[in-house]
Amino acid sequence: MTQTQWIWYPGDFEIYQGMKQNFDREERGFFWPAYWYTPGWNHNVVFSKTYQITAPTHFTVQGHGRGNVVINLPVAGQTDPQQIKHPFNTDIVCPVGNVKIEVIVGNLSGLPSAFIQGDVIHSDASWLATNYLGDPLPVGANKYFTRADQNPMTFEYSHRLLQPLAIKVVNGGTLLDFGHDYTAVTQVAFKQGFKPLIICYGESETEALDVEMTYMKQTLDQGQSDFGSYQADTYRTKLRAFRYLFVPGEPNLDQVATITADYQYVDFPAISHFKSSDQELDEIWKISDRTLRLCSGLFIIDGAKRDRWIWAGDAYQSYYMNQYDFFDKGLVERTMLALRGNLDIKQHLDTIIDYSMYWIIGVEQYYQTFADKTFLKAIYPKVESLMRYCMAQTNDLGFIYGRKGDWVYVDWADIDYDGTVSAEQMLLARSYQAMSHIQSILGIESTEFESKFTDLKRNIWQYFWDAEKGAFIDSYESGKHHVTRHANIFAVLFDYTTTAETKQIINNVLLNDEITAINTPYFKFWELEVFAKLGMFDNLKDQIKSYWGGMLQHGATTFWEYFDPNETKPAEYAMYGDKFGKSLCHAWGSSPLYLLGRYVMGLQPTKPGYATFEVAPHTDWFTDLDCTLPIADGTINITISDGTLTVQATQAGGTLNYAGQQLVLPANQPVSVPVEA
Amino acid sequence: MTQTQWIWYPGDFEIYQGMKQNFDREERGFFWPAYWYTPGWNHNVVFSKTYQITAPTHFTVQGHGRGNVVINLPVAGQTDPQQIKHPFNTDIVCPVGNVKIEVIVGNLSGLPSAFIQGDVIHSDASWLATNYLGDPLPVGANKYFTRADQNPMTFEYSHRLLQPLAIKVVNGGTLLDFGHDYTAVTQVAFKQGFKPLIICYGESETEALDVEMTYMKQTLDQGQSDFGSYQADTYRTKLRAFRYLFVPGEPNLDQVATITADYQYVDFPAISHFKSSDQELDEIWKISDRTLRLCSGLFIIDGAKRDRWIWAGDAYQSYYMNQYDFFDKGLVERTMLALRGNLDIKQHLDTIIDYSMYWIIGVEQYYQTFADKTFLKAIYPKVESLMRYCMAQTNDLGFIYGRKGDWVYVDWADIDYDGTVSAEQMLLARSYQAMSHIQSILGIESTEFESKFTDLKRNIWQYFWDAEKGAFIDSYESGKHHVTRHANIFAVLFDYTTTAETKQIINNVLLNDEITAINTPYFKFWELEVFAKLGMFDNLKDQIKSYWGGMLQHGATTFWEYFDPNETKPAEYAMYGDKFGKSLCHAWGSSPLYLLGRYVMGLQPTKPGYATFEVAPHTDWFTDLDCTLPIADGTINITISDGTLTVQATQAGGTLNYAGQQLVLPANQPVSVPVEA
Repeated sequence: MTQTQWIWYPGDFEIYQGMKQNFDREERGFFWPAYWYTPGWNHNVVFSKTYQITAPTHFTVQGHGRGNVVINLPVAGQTDPQQIKHPFNTDIVCPVGNVKIEVIVGNLSGLPSAFIQGDVIHSDASWLATNYLGDPLPVGANKYFTRADQNPMTFEYSHRLLQPLAIKVVNGGTLLDFGHDYTAVTQVAFKQGFKPLIICYGESETEALDVEMTYMKQTLDQGQSDFGSYQADTYRTKLRAFRYLFVPGEPNLDQVATITADYQYVDFPAISHFKSSDQELDEIWKISDRTLRLCSGLFIIDGAKRDRWIWAGDAYQSYYMNQYDFFDKGLVERTMLALRGNLDIKQHLDTIIDYSMYWIIGVEQYYQTFADKTFLKAIYPKVESLMRYCMAQTNDLGFIYGRKGDWVYVDWADIDYDGTVSAEQMLLARSYQAMSHIQSILGIESTEFESKFTDLKRNIWQYFWDAEKGAFIDSYESGKHHVTRHANIFAVLFDYTTTAETKQIINNVLLNDEITAINTPYFKFWELEVFAKLGMFDNLKDQIKSYWGGMLQHGATTFWEYFDPNETKPAEYAMYGDKFGKSLCHAWGSSPLYLLGRYVMGLQPTKPGYATFEVAPHTDWFTDLDCTLPIADGTINITISDGTLTVQATQAGGTLNYAGQQLVLPANQPVSVPVEA
Repeated sequence: MTQTQWIWYPGDFEIYQGMKQNFDREERGFFWPAYWYTPGWNHNVVFSKTYQITAPTHFTVQGHGRGNVVINLPVAGQTDPQQIKHPFNTDIVCPVGNVKIEVIVGNLSGLPSAFIQGDVIHSDASWLATNYLGDPLPVGANKYFTRADQNPMTFEYSHRLLQPLAIKVVNGGTLLDFGHDYTAVTQVAFKQGFKPLIICYGESETEALDVEMTYMKQTLDQGQSDFGSYQADTYRTKLRAFRYLFVPGEPNLDQVATITADYQYVDFPAISHFKSSDQELDEIWKISDRTLRLCSGLFIIDGAKRDRWIWAGDAYQSYYMNQYDFFDKGLVERTMLALRGNLDIKQHLDTIIDYSMYWIIGVEQYYQTFADKTFLKAIYPKVESLMRYCMAQTNDLGFIYGRKGDWVYVDWADIDYDGTVSAEQMLLARSYQAMSHIQSILGIESTEFESKFTDLKRNIWQYFWDAEKGAFIDSYESGKHHVTRHANIFAVLFDYTTTAETKQIINNVLLNDEITAINTPYFKFWELEVFAKLGMFDNLKDQIKSYWGGMLQHGATTFWEYFDPNETKPAEYAMYGDKFGKSLCHAWGSSPLYLLGRYVMGLQPTKPGYATFEVAPHTDWFTDLDCTLPIADGTINITISDGTLTVQATQAGGTLNYAGQQLVLPANQPVSVPVEA
């Protein structure tokens, strides 16, 4: 018997919990729900499954919501079955026959869900759900909701109660340091009864001590609100991300209250491991892993403190980091479903056209990583409809353009946005390829997207490739022939350029100081990947050392949203015109996980789900190395020691590409070769 | 200063409360949410209004949900305004300038709403709302939510605590009779502590005493659930409709508990009045009024006990009854908005094609009754999109057909549903007329629907008019030439037939016993209206007396869903194969209100909103009469006494059509004429 699971309408758990997530941003005493259209879940659903019952069998149904249970029993000679109805929470005996069980649940304020327990009849992913539109679909369910006393509206985080690592009296108050950022409930246990303490939060000490300007601050009360609640001499706040807590005006805090942090997290497994002769890289790996985990829970969010929102661009990059770190399939699925929302789409993801296209490309990337055709099939209608939503705003040349309300983002950069923009067309071309590939995986026979891709690529070259400049220009309509790095990076990354064109782009764009430098870590991700892809490992190393190593030198214990080595405190904590507006724990700060794993270790699946894979370590960065990375259900270990490179994988299908050789990696057997001079 | 109101995204109050209503059906211990797609409301909205502030002014913002307040202050020489943000529930000072106030509210589990209080800045219907899609729209607001301590998620009903009119010991238990149906909380106040009493409900005594089969029964407990809650020695159930309560096994109930009914209702004004020499008609009027009121609250529902759902067909008929009874504009608006749901439509109203079309026609009827162009303009996009949703399923001949999942209903009758069905085409034609009229009211210049109407009408005649039978047939595709009354009734009612055709229909269909009789009160409404329209007042009177008078003879204290004079107890309480499945308080049972008001009194607006109106009493039914009916904001009184007909209206614009004369009715002045012999 399979595990009994709570079930819901497919995708609705993610829409419900995603809305909860996107309404969780807090700033200076108020909430800030994500500023885009927020689709809702289905409130009225029917779950069903047909059983061939050979002996009377008992079952019970729990539902979150109002409803009933219908046993549909065929009657000889009649079209309509006999319907026997039961309330929830009663012992139901199902009679013998080819019986269709229906569980009807309506939930006004939350997510309708059901938990059906019985020896034969019980709820799991094999049930179907309908919202009364179209044919029933396989239900949603996940591994976290398997107990009768649960409610899929309330996720049960893992907990760890943290004591401050250091406490000091400063500025007439008490400062607590928990060592690095955590997403935690602040728990204030009063020793001699309640006192309206003020808690100032900080990702940095500077922020926590800035009582006036800190991003989050709360004066405790004895009530209950969205910010926390008081009970039994203890105030428990809502979840917040912080490293420091400052309690102003309380130099003797230890006599007033004990403050602990109830750290709440999703317990992703510790899979990857990176230890080498380069201690700085080791630290970068460790901090990257910490940062990514703090930005990963039910969903991948952009930053732990801010925005706490699910952004498709940020998430897309994090899929790659997750692949080389804790390899959580459910995390990617939940994030994709939350981002996408309902089948009928009313607005680009997070309002941004490029983000819609990253999402489509991300689905292909998901399959390449996890090879789950069931999920791919389930999400496919949402993929195709989003693709068509994008196609509906292309012009005669096939170029996608922004409509009123659309955000043509690409990057915070001096891009010439006049008319259609080249970087967007690159993403559109890449989306067509993803569609074509996804369709072929699902056995959908069509050449539509292949030919869309061919036509679009031809037009991109005709209109955006500037032969004189030897580069792609942003806009052909403006007449400015302005070049930025973005479209050129995509063209190389997506393998669209010939060797000659690539060389031109390297010289005319990537290594050309006259072309404005990429100055966001968001796009630096792709720029560094291009360096790695083109074998420009020195550039890669320089950047990793200066940017991430630079952050470490500035005291980072998680990686920041943005780093400029020339800035110092407090200016380095400012962003968006806000003194403490910068997120100091930002998912995209974790990109070394991917850059090191994918390029420096050279690990990649060569067939979906690592049925085959290759590893091609760039050994000259290390004299010693011990690195473990995930490969589907297993791991691969790469070591360098005493001049020997050893690679061992827990599953077959691997190839070690090294020093011009291709060596087969048998399961669980080490393969060693001398390190190349 | 206008009244401060709670505001919400337009239409969302009705979607939220409508869902609550449609999830409220109860049957034998379980809930039964309405079996159709149930759209949700917006969870994430921004309310805004721009003020020209000339002196600093204070305001506060309350919100149900999470959010903040943004003051957008223009800055000289800059495109973007300065944004000053504030939490809810704080004293905010708005500086001088052309200031745009934005209130951002996200609500995961409920309806986002805001209440903004201040001398200058305060919330009312002049604010705008956006869900981050498209241009902001005028907010939703209503007269019931004007206090800071309210929440639009909780409607405050009027209350009246009722004692049973009769108590008797029977079958070893105690039976309480409240006189007629009420929708009430059952309040059980225990005298000597809790006892798990069983409460059996009945619209009839037979039902209440049938402990096994009664539709609603509850064994009280000391907990709290969707069925009620126990507190301070008193159990209060959820709202239920009943006349009788039976407590089995408790012959000495008075020693155990006091049971009262907390009747909850929307206090619609007592406008209409009907007292005549025909006491049976008086009683029919009184019971009709009671029935309609019990089925009218936030919305018009089909029946007080069952289904408690909002059905577009039932509601459409009730709009006409409301017009001649308590004339509540808000009730019609809320019902229309709840039925229609969101702008993008995914399913026909209640899944029924004809119901979608009644809804469109109902909007025109709304305007004719209330003449509110603001509401018409606001709802227009939902009207047009529903019309186009219908048009998308028309064939080459312009005939509407059912797709998979659509319910082509018309009526419970022996209609030949093969291919496209004539009655549906009549409604489609009528919908095109309504669209055309609505567009012209709103100044939308288009001949689209006029020409659609002309084309469709021509094809209806060509394909469905059977010259040989002198009647419309149901289906031309089946080849059966089957005639039912339905399409023929519509054709006459909608003024589509020539005098010659009408005569044929009267003889070949309406007065032809070989054509299956209408046997649902739902369609009897239109059949009786046709009789009245054609001046067949004897038929009308016979039917009213036999059908509604018949129900009175069977002890009805509210009018039933269906009545067959040949049935007796308990069979007359059964329906849909359920011993007590019949609703004994059903909105459409109130149609005498309309038939008497519109045809026997002959009152109708001749311009929208009774700017002009006429009254044409059919006096030979009475020797004495005192009837008051609503006319927009006023009333009209019609009396017959001592052979004199006297008519007096509280507003000008009226014409008395009587005995071949047309007499002007000045405001507040009686006009008397001798009753025609």
